[in-house]
Parts: sequence; structure tokens; C-alpha cells
Amino acid sequence: MTDFTMTVTVALPYDEAVARVRDLLGEAGFGVLTEIDLAATLRAKLGVEIAPQMILGACRPQLAHQALQADPRLAAMLPCNVVVASEGEGRSRIDVFDPAVMTLFSDAIAVAEVANDARGRLAGMLAAVGSAAEGAINAA
Amino acid sequence: MTDFTMTVTVALPYDEAVARVRDLLGEAGFGVLTEIDLAATLRAKLGVEIAPQMILGACRPQLAHQALQADPRLAAMLPCNVVVASEGEGRSRIDVFDPAVMTLFSDAIAVAEVANDARGRLAGMLAAVGSAAEGAINAA
Repeated sequence: MTDFTMTVTVALPYDEAVARVRDLLGEAGFGVLTEIDLAATLRAKLGVEIAPQMILGACRPQLAHQALQADPRLAAMLPCNVVVASEGEGRSRIDVFDPAVMTLFSDAIAVAEVANDARGRLAGMLAAVGSAAEGAINAA
Repeated sequence: MTDFTMTVTVALPYDEAVARVRDLLGEAGFGVLTEIDLAATLRAKLGVEIAPQMILGACRPQLAHQALQADPRLAAMLPCNVVVASEGEGRSRIDVFDPAVMTLFSDAIAVAEVANDARGRLAGMLAAVGSAAEGAINAA
């Protein structure tokens, strides 16, 4: 494994992409426990400007519980980050922290099962954001 | 590398450990951007009981900015999780997500520098929590 994110770029403006990702995470069975407006944070703390981007902390409680039972240290990889970033010109990039990273550090079968389940749900969410964008292009 | 956390167990009750970690993160130059009461979340969502534990999302804006400039995907590893969990009997475990994990996925020199800086600060924080606990034992 050489990568640690699942990433797509979609033809949706930033605000719409954030809203769509939030909805689709819910449909995929994830709650959003935390939200960090990274651009606003760095502007406030450092006075620098970066592309608008939001880190959503996604958690499926059943999976979190299974992961913790298998290896309590995995709390340090929760929640699963879903980053939505503006690429400008009506496009956005979505980077999901790949749950498969957990399996690099914990070889319990239960961890592999949790990672697979989470990965499948999040990959489905990413595909659906792409489809939504496709629809948006067709409708335009 | 076979591990993904820096971990210590200290002779401090949970509430004191959380307060102490929060203070020491500030002294180490980290802000706490997010807080998840994991036990309360799983109780509310699943009706299960786990040991009291809190995930603090720690961020040093300068380092976050350097990391993003080197590799924008690293937003998916921000903020740096610091988990404080009760071990009962006046003891707590602290698991810090090891920033060195970033260097497994990104070989930019700037990323190694950021990871080293963050790791050193967080290791110092962990050592200081341990010292505080030592003091607490001596004082008892």
C-alpha cells in the first residue's frame, strides 16, 4: 500500500460538495462528529490563505466499537477524516482517510473486517458524490 | 515501524489526566480543535459502555500549514489525535497518533521535518504528563 487516502475530484462547487458529502455520509451510515474549517483556522491563527477546505470527522459507531474492542489504540485513528477542498472553477477534491491504513498496524481479523466495511461504505459515498456531480453537469 | 501511537500510562485519574493533557498541549504549542467524548458517543448511539475516553484533536497551525504545502492530502491526517482513556484505579492511558506515520506515505523532506517537530513536541508533552503524575504520587 502506497497511499493513505481515497480521492476523487468532482464537478461541484465547494459549498455544494460539502453539503453533498455530508448527506451521503449519513446515507452510508456515518455520523459527522467534528468539523474543522481548515482555511478559517489557518487564517485566524497564521494570517495565511489556503483553498477553502473542511475536515469532517466521520464515525460509524458500530464500526468504531468493534475496532476499539479489537485494539483500543485505534481510538487514535478515529473518527475517519473526510476532507472536502475547493479546487476552484466549480470543482472540488474529496480525500477520505483510507480505513485500510488500520490494517498496517493491527493484524486482528476484526480490524480487517472493520476496515473493509468502512472502506466499502466510504468508496460508495465517493462514487455517489461523483454521480451527483455528473448529474449536475448534465443538468447545466 | 510497527506502531502508530506514542503511549504512556500515568497515575492520574481520568478527569485530571484530561485537564493536564489539555494544558500541556497548549504549552507544547498545540491548540485543541476538536473534542470527542467517545464513551458518551457510543453510549448514546449504541447503548454500550466503554471506559471513559476522550479524543482531543490537536493542531499546531504552523506545522499543519507546512504539511499541507508539502502534500495537500495530509489534511486527512489532521488534526493529530491525542486520546486520554481511563484505566480505572486512578490510572489513565494516553495514546498519541504518531506523526511519523505521515512519513510512511509522503517522502517530501518538508513532511519529515514537520513530523519530527510534531513528534518531539508531543513526546515532550507525554513525558511531562508522566512527571505530573509522579508529582501527584509523591504528594499523596
